[in-house]
Amino acid sequence: MRDFKINGQRLWQSLMDMAQIGATAGGGVCRLALTDSDRAGRDLFVRWCGEANCTVTYDSIGNIFARREGRRSERPPVVAGSHLDSQPNGGRFDGTYGVLAALEVARTLNDAGHETEAPIEIAVWTNEEGSRFSPAMLGSAVFAGRMDLNEAYAIADADGKTVGEELERIGYKGEGYGDRSVAAYFEAHIEQGPFLEAGGKTIGVVTGGQGQIWYDATFIGEASHAGTTPMARRRDALVGAASLVQAVQAIGRSFQPKGYATVGTLQVKPNSRNVIPGEVSLTAEVRHADDSERKRMDVALRHAAQEVADRQGLELKLERTWERAATTFDAGCIAVVREGAVRGGFRNMDIVSAAGHDAFLLAEIAPTGMIFVPCKEGISHNEAESATSEDLAAGCQVLLHAVVKTADREGSQ
Amino acid sequence: MRDFKINGQRLWQSLMDMAQIGATAGGGVCRLALTDSDRAGRDLFVRWCGEANCTVTYDSIGNIFARREGRRSERPPVVAGSHLDSQPNGGRFDGTYGVLAALEVARTLNDAGHETEAPIEIAVWTNEEGSRFSPAMLGSAVFAGRMDLNEAYAIADADGKTVGEELERIGYKGEGYGDRSVAAYFEAHIEQGPFLEAGGKTIGVVTGGQGQIWYDATFIGEASHAGTTPMARRRDALVGAASLVQAVQAIGRSFQPKGYATVGTLQVKPNSRNVIPGEVSLTAEVRHADDSERKRMDVALRHAAQEVADRQGLELKLERTWERAATTFDAGCIAVVREGAVRGGFRNMDIVSAAGHDAFLLAEIAPTGMIFVPCKEGISHNEAESATSEDLAAGCQVLLHAVVKTADREGSQ
Repeated sequence: MRDFKINGQRLWQSLMDMAQIGATAGGGVCRLALTDSDRAGRDLFVRWCGEANCTVTYDSIGNIFARREGRRSERPPVVAGSHLDSQPNGGRFDGTYGVLAALEVARTLNDAGHETEAPIEIAVWTNEEGSRFSPAMLGSAVFAGRMDLNEAYAIADADGKTVGEELERIGYKGEGYGDRSVAAYFEAHIEQGPFLEAGGKTIGVVTGGQGQIWYDATFIGEASHAGTTPMARRRDALVGAASLVQAVQAIGRSFQPKGYATVGTLQVKPNSRNVIPGEVSLTAEVRHADDSERKRMDVALRHAAQEVADRQGLELKLERTWERAATTFDAGCIAVVREGAVRGGFRNMDIVSAAGHDAFLLAEIAPTGMIFVPCKEGISHNEAESATSEDLAAGCQVLLHAVVKTADREGSQ
Repeated sequence: MRDFKINGQRLWQSLMDMAQIGATAGGGVCRLALTDSDRAGRDLFVRWCGEANCTVTYDSIGNIFARREGRRSERPPVVAGSHLDSQPNGGRFDGTYGVLAALEVARTLNDAGHETEAPIEIAVWTNEEGSRFSPAMLGSAVFAGRMDLNEAYAIADADGKTVGEELERIGYKGEGYGDRSVAAYFEAHIEQGPFLEAGGKTIGVVTGGQGQIWYDATFIGEASHAGTTPMARRRDALVGAASLVQAVQAIGRSFQPKGYATVGTLQVKPNSRNVIPGEVSLTAEVRHADDSERKRMDVALRHAAQEVADRQGLELKLERTWERAATTFDAGCIAVVREGAVRGGFRNMDIVSAAGHDAFLLAEIAPTGMIFVPCKEGISHNEAESATSEDLAAGCQVLLHAVVKTADREGSQ
């Protein structure tokens, strides 16, 4: 494979130009899905794609595909991209980076006059953030056949405006479901976590995404007078909840190094200084990159909660409210990303994504890989989100390697 | 001592008549201190006292004293009473019972034509509840010299009306501070706790009041992403708080049978499912009838909190926001109450009060005793507050014994 070099300065300039659209006073962006500013962002992207000799189409859920033709037009495309919508006080790089890095790959190939074997497509997925229309990752879910199109159209925002209406209004309601025969999908993204920065690495070779389980738990005891109820006769829901908080931590610690277990919220009733808590609700979550380990964590957590309830004489309501299996990316895609990092001379490490990404949906229908670059202090979904021009250029260089190597390989289909 | 019998039916009727004043739809009463309904309750009481040949005076904070003269007018009086003000959704017996039981003692002595050696006074203390004007037990605190009169006058309710203005408005602002030379003080009250009912007892011989300490504690750790922060690097404020909740319970259990230790409130920040709690605030309280034991509990709690903070790498803010020493009633007063219970053939037990009462203030300046009678399920400060006519009569009979025995004793001063 020839030694193409992406133009880091051009990439940075495009990121800064895109950040003007929906720019916030605090230095971030607000481009909620299917708003006028989302349209303006899409329009700018489409204009740039035209200038880069790409052919733009969009599907019925508004996903945009900008195709750079290959020598073998009949081959399934290698797709790279991410999303252009943002959180209400979002940063300049979350999503946008993956889209514009893919555009920079096309521009670099144009400059080099290189025609790949398979076509390359730059994808912009609709409503990744889920801030305006829930759930998140809507466009990629419809594309992957995980969500029904009409169900997606009917989703309304807080003002009652639907995805279908708003897609039509901004002019991005296309036809069909996109071409699901994808040779491979690559997505570059800021890490949204602290590991690369902490480890002094430039590139995260993403091996997959954590599996997760969310729990809602309620312990019900008996509210009674703190000054007259003997210690031995109490049914203190907070003492039970406290035991579970500690058990959850212990579970996380016993599934190292990939296990995470957290109680993030807790509410006490009646929450009065003189009254023994009669009811405590809390949420817990466990995460693990390995589904079989996650299932063992699940068993341990449920066992611990029941044991606490029995020991303290409390009633327990425990519900798994949400579950996501771990994603393991394609070994070939992981390898070609790692190869790109090594070839670029970038310090790299394998990493598992904690956040959700469109790539997890694509992984259900195509070989998929992701490239992470550091973001300052792991901060994202925040106007303060920050990444260096050098790191972003390095990630783009790795993306180029992965995309071109995959598109040019023998017998790629 | 002659065998006087109080009239339980007359006592019950007076309680029901008084309950008409400020009656709530739910079967309780609302007679907030120094309101028109408090005035109406006072007026009815004063009328009844006149009919019982008692001389009514009131002091500068509005405490009412109804004096039934004794053979030796120069002797300090034996005082019995409680309060007529209520919680906003209060019950019919809290306070009112102690006042009308004392009135029933006077009426019974009138019927029997018995003249005691020392005079007897029925006391109504102003603003015991503290619902409208904070703090509670205001009238008895001024009487006992624990609160400055002008400071008390200046206390305002939520509408800015002051104790001084309202006392004047309802016509109960008297002169002087009352006569602090009290031979003994007795107060009959519903238990406001579950012990008598649970033990199948009719009379609680109150030996004193619990000492208490209130704490406000905050653990400060670091809020971070639940999916990317390794278990070993976390500074989870909720895990620290959970350890303290359990330590507080353990402290209560290790100071049996008189110790109580409770965490009643807890708040988590940011209280988000995916975020490791960065800050948790909680309140704790310990109670013990023995001050030296309470101080050992205090040391244990403070030690446990610091140990938790150190072990979990958390910052700790711990403040004792309030403290009350235990009250130990006069041995002679306790004995004469117990004697009255035995003489009446009432099943009785010694008991320590968990709630605050005017008697705790009186105990600072005079020999004091209290008599508890059961209240249904320990419920008080609630319209559902309930007590049986038989139990109330029994408590009144014990009060009569204690008052008359004390007033008639040789050399009583």
